Amino acid sequence: MDLGSIIGVIAGFICIAFGIMVLGAPLGLYLDPASVLITIGGSFSAIMISNPLGRTLGILRYLKHIIRAPNWEEERIISRLVAFSEKARRDGLLALEDDLDEVEDDFLRKGIQLVVDGTDPEIIKNVLYNELSKIQERHGVGIKLFDDWGKLAPAFGMIGTLIGLISIMGNIEDKSAIGSGMAAALLTTLYGALMANLLFIPIKNKLEDRDINESLIKEVMIEGILSIQQGDNPRILEEKLIAFLPPARREAVKAESGRD
Amino acid sequence: MDLGSIIGVIAGFICIAFGIMVLGAPLGLYLDPASVLITIGGSFSAIMISNPLGRTLGILRYLKHIIRAPNWEEERIISRLVAFSEKARRDGLLALEDDLDEVEDDFLRKGIQLVVDGTDPEIIKNVLYNELSKIQERHGVGIKLFDDWGKLAPAFGMIGTLIGLISIMGNIEDKSAIGSGMAAALLTTLYGALMANLLFIPIKNKLEDRDINESLIKEVMIEGILSIQQGDNPRILEEKLIAFLPPARREAVKAESGRD
Amino acid sequence: MDLGSIIGVIAGFICIAFGIMVLGAPLGLYLDPASVLITIGGSFSAIMISNPLGRTLGILRYLKHIIRAPNWEEERIISRLVAFSEKARRDGLLALEDDLDEVEDDFLRKGIQLVVDGTDPEIIKNVLYNELSKIQERHGVGIKLFDDWGKLAPAFGMIGTLIGLISIMGNIEDKSAIGSGMAAALLTTLYGALMANLLFIPIKNKLEDRDINESLIKEVMIEGILSIQQGDNPRILEEKLIAFLPPARREAVKAESGRD
Amino acid sequence: MDLGSIIGVIAGFICIAFGIMVLGAPLGLYLDPASVLITIGGSFSAIMISNPLGRTLGILRYLKHIIRAPNWEEERIISRLVAFSEKARRDGLLALEDDLDEVEDDFLRKGIQLVVDGTDPEIIKNVLYNELSKIQERHGVGIKLFDDWGKLAPAFGMIGTLIGLISIMGNIEDKSAIGSGMAAALLTTLYGALMANLLFIPIKNKLEDRDINESLIKEVMIEGILSIQQGDNPRILEEKLIAFLPPARREAVKAESGRD
Amino acid sequence: MDLGSIIGVIAGFICIAFGIMVLGAPLGLYLDPASVLITIGGSFSAIMISNPLGRTLGILRYLKHIIRAPNWEEERIISRLVAFSEKARRDGLLALEDDLDEVEDDFLRKGIQLVVDGTDPEIIKNVLYNELSKIQERHGVGIKLFDDWGKLAPAFGMIGTLIGLISIMGNIEDKSAIGSGMAAALLTTLYGALMANLLFIPIKNKLEDRDINESLIKEVMIEGILSIQQGDNPRILEEKLIAFLPPARREAVKAESGRD
Repeated sequence: MDLGSIIGVIAGFICIAFGIMVLGAPLGLYLDPASVLITIGGSFSAIMISNPLGRTLGILRYLKHIIRAPNWEEERIISRLVAFSEKARRDGLLALEDDLDEVEDDFLRKGIQLVVDGTDPEIIKNVLYNELSKIQERHGVGIKLFDDWGKLAPAFGMIGTLIGLISIMGNIEDKSAIGSGMAAALLTTLYGALMANLLFIPIKNKLEDRDINESLIKEVMIEGILSIQQGDNPRILEEKLIAFLPPARREAVKAESGRD
Repeated sequence: MDLGSIIGVIAGFICIAFGIMVLGAPLGLYLDPASVLITIGGSFSAIMISNPLGRTLGILRYLKHIIRAPNWEEERIISRLVAFSEKARRDGLLALEDDLDEVEDDFLRKGIQLVVDGTDPEIIKNVLYNELSKIQERHGVGIKLFDDWGKLAPAFGMIGTLIGLISIMGNIEDKSAIGSGMAAALLTTLYGALMANLLFIPIKNKLEDRDINESLIKEVMIEGILSIQQGDNPRILEEKLIAFLPPARREAVKAESGRD
Repeated sequence: MDLGSIIGVIAGFICIAFGIMVLGAPLGLYLDPASVLITIGGSFSAIMISNPLGRTLGILRYLKHIIRAPNWEEERIISRLVAFSEKARRDGLLALEDDLDEVEDDFLRKGIQLVVDGTDPEIIKNVLYNELSKIQERHGVGIKLFDDWGKLAPAFGMIGTLIGLISIMGNIEDKSAIGSGMAAALLTTLYGALMANLLFIPIKNKLEDRDINESLIKEVMIEGILSIQQGDNPRILEEKLIAFLPPARREAVKAESGRD
Repeated sequence: MDLGSIIGVIAGFICIAFGIMVLGAPLGLYLDPASVLITIGGSFSAIMISNPLGRTLGILRYLKHIIRAPNWEEERIISRLVAFSEKARRDGLLALEDDLDEVEDDFLRKGIQLVVDGTDPEIIKNVLYNELSKIQERHGVGIKLFDDWGKLAPAFGMIGTLIGLISIMGNIEDKSAIGSGMAAALLTTLYGALMANLLFIPIKNKLEDRDINESLIKEVMIEGILSIQQGDNPRILEEKLIAFLPPARREAVKAESGRD
Repeated sequence: MDLGSIIGVIAGFICIAFGIMVLGAPLGLYLDPASVLITIGGSFSAIMISNPLGRTLGILRYLKHIIRAPNWEEERIISRLVAFSEKARRDGLLALEDDLDEVEDDFLRKGIQLVVDGTDPEIIKNVLYNELSKIQERHGVGIKLFDDWGKLAPAFGMIGTLIGLISIMGNIEDKSAIGSGMAAALLTTLYGALMANLLFIPIKNKLEDRDINESLIKEVMIEGILSIQQGDNPRILEEKLIAFLPPARREAVKAESGRD
């Protein structure tokens, strides 16, 4: 569960609501379903044109991805790779087959399976890096979608405001309606700005961050799998892999593997 | 037929029309042929200066490209490449000549023809990658055109609004005309923003997406053609090619080829 | 003669003039030499600071470059290279010397001359690619100049409008002058936007396009010259070179060379 | 202690305060806790969504990083590396172990330790460059955070102003409140612009600059460590390392090492 | 002396002054020391935070760099390198020592000195390219500084205008002051736009151009120095070096060297 995102969204809306209350303005003044429709509906329509239908409909999956914090537990994965390395040197590569069921991560299990199958190292490397680059491409699609949406939402907010302004100008004799008309017209710009800056752009940022993290841990796995196959010294393997972690987290691995 | 684009355009205009109706403004207030002329005509003129005449006139071709969804059927192409691979190992490369007529895709047919002709692998690789890079360049031209148009349309929308504002200011004594003048002046900005955000930018996005998809399937074909020529094991070929697909679609290929 | 640019500029100004007439505003309201001076003069001053004096003064050369459409006639150049290839295989490389005078393009003539002189292939390749990269650098200078101008013109348009607004505000008691003052003040913004979007940005786009085309045909020439020196089969040379053309234009080359 | 940052922040706020006093406006008009909350709170909420919780909470560490000017003393580090090189040639690599305690920089000490341990040069190089690239990645995270914040702060400033404008428009009959309402509404835009341009963007710039400097001195260290292991001539090592410094600072190194 | 920059700055300010006079506005309306302080002072404060103190204080050096046009005289440098090449082939590399004093350029002298000293070619190449990349890094620092300033100046102009607007709005009853207040408030935006577009951005452009030119001539020198050491034919050296010049300037070199 990604606490940062949840706290951030709640805190953001509290700030906005607080700002409105301080002004003494009725909250209802800021709620208008038609403005929501123009801003969200319009920008989502543009997203639909931009993307294949299946991808647009799968957009909720990305949102789930934000909420659910993948806990990569780099330390545990490194410890496991070191343990595999020791076992392989002691009992041979085939002995790793028994442990395959315990490996939750598909990518790691596939890699170990290839090692157990005695696949050529060059092919293992190609297969795993190809798989990684496909994962990154799929992430890239989601990142681009929210990046686009973060630009389209303010644009449709402005379009809504223009529609409202033209309506006011075309009926300018009715002075009493100008104020409320302007208030309503500005709402779509507000909605567009809020959606972009409190949701879509931060979501894009978070997806980018997740992509970097997942790529990092996958590279750790590839490095480990190839070292295991080559029969590298487990001690050296551990040194190599913990260099991927920030200094503060290196001790944890060493502690867990009972060395140093 | 690309449902996403069609639904998106229709939904987008419904959102806009709904927004206008909710305001109680007459739809006619938002329709003005002269404003259309300035915004579309002006930005299209700039596109004409930017591009060779032939390309500008061929712009409708790109629009057709959006509507018609190319169904790459990656699964079928991979199955076919695997079938070719099996046939080639069984009956020799020349036996593939009989199947050439069934291949609808020009690129794939050309590649198989080169294999049947006994062309040097290095040359086949160069010819096909050169062809692919030319295809990408042609796509790039279309993408740049809509990217440019997506920036020029709002600029000419603003130019139209400036022309209208200057006219109002130059005749400011006529107070009764200010409101309707402003409404008309803002129309070009509205048109420019709508054209850019509901048409040109999404079209650009979709063309980019198509380019990535077509490049991917062409790379699958090149990989397959070269493997067939080398006489690779069909089983290994299949493994290599399905790695290009997202995991969820890999099963379909395996099912079709009757393995696994 | 580049029809697209001419039609585009004329059509663009017709759209603008039409928009003004539809408003019933006097055209004279939109013409103001002082505003032209601020916008063009100011942005051109900034261009002068940005560039060496000689380059700024040579700006008209780029404009000539836009009007005069270079007709690369890729098909004819390819046919000629194929003819040279045949002659060289029949009569030896030295026989090409007789045809040098017919070659109008400096780059191609220089390359053939180097072949006739018996220069080392590696040196020919270096000389021609160095020459090509210098051509691209010179094009890049022109592209950057119009790109900069396309950003500076709207900036100086805004500067002019600010000057006008400050003048109006400083003398706000004279209510009768506000309208005409605002009209005049907005003119520089209009001029800046028009110059950028109807001239400088499209010119930049066209120069970029020309650069890509010229680079392409120069690469065709280099490829051809090196193949001729190596004594490649003319048939294979033709295949290699027409791959640079879009499919629709390949037939023309084959027809001209009397094959296929 | 980084004087530039401190002087800059103080001078910036003095300029702003002076501008306000010159206008004769009461300073209190520019202070509004609720506006601070919307602008800082809103943009910080977006930062929280964008980043893992731990990183957001560690933001103060980056600020400390700005204030505390790391004094890399490139000259001293080069002199020390040259001294190590001389000692290693005279007394052997193992003799460096005695000096390890004097080395304050973790990176340099780790490198020398690896040399003393007799580690393979290729492995030392990999370990140190991997370590350097991880340092750069950690810097990149901080740079991106302030870059994002520098864009989000003005966006939330604008959101605050929109909220204020809508409130005014919705209650437009109360003419007396319009002026003070507008003043309050504009405050968030002012805060957003000030935070971005006087804090977040300059901080981002400074972090980028620090990253370049730290990378440079780390590259000097790697170059020096590898040269020491290879037993390069100390004189040549010095020449190589001072080439990393600007000309004006090269003399200092030569003076310190008592040569030239 | 760089005429372009001087003419450009003068012409730019004449255009602006002319625009003001045409409006019949008093020039004094556009001069306000407090506005200068906010815009220049504020943006310069942000520059101080962004950079180490020494660099900010050295900013005048960059300005001197703009005024003083370095006359690279590529033709003379090429002629000299060709003359050195001839002398070296005739009298040996050591003979070049006599001419070292005549070489004004530090970079060229250092390179020739290394040749005379009999340094290994690979080391000469590394030393000179390292020196060149350090020169480019130092240029990059100046370019980034003016690029940043060109963005910060308009931002602080806008901040000044916001401060002014808030002051007016907070005291809106005093109708008589609104006009002059607005005029004063807009001044900072005008100053920011002028500084950025007439000074900082053009200066950045010119520094970029200088960097490209200096890099080019330094590459000519490196190429020449290495050729001299290898004992290349002076004729071939000349051909190689003049290929760096635009065609129009190649004749000058040939004329000077008395060949062709």
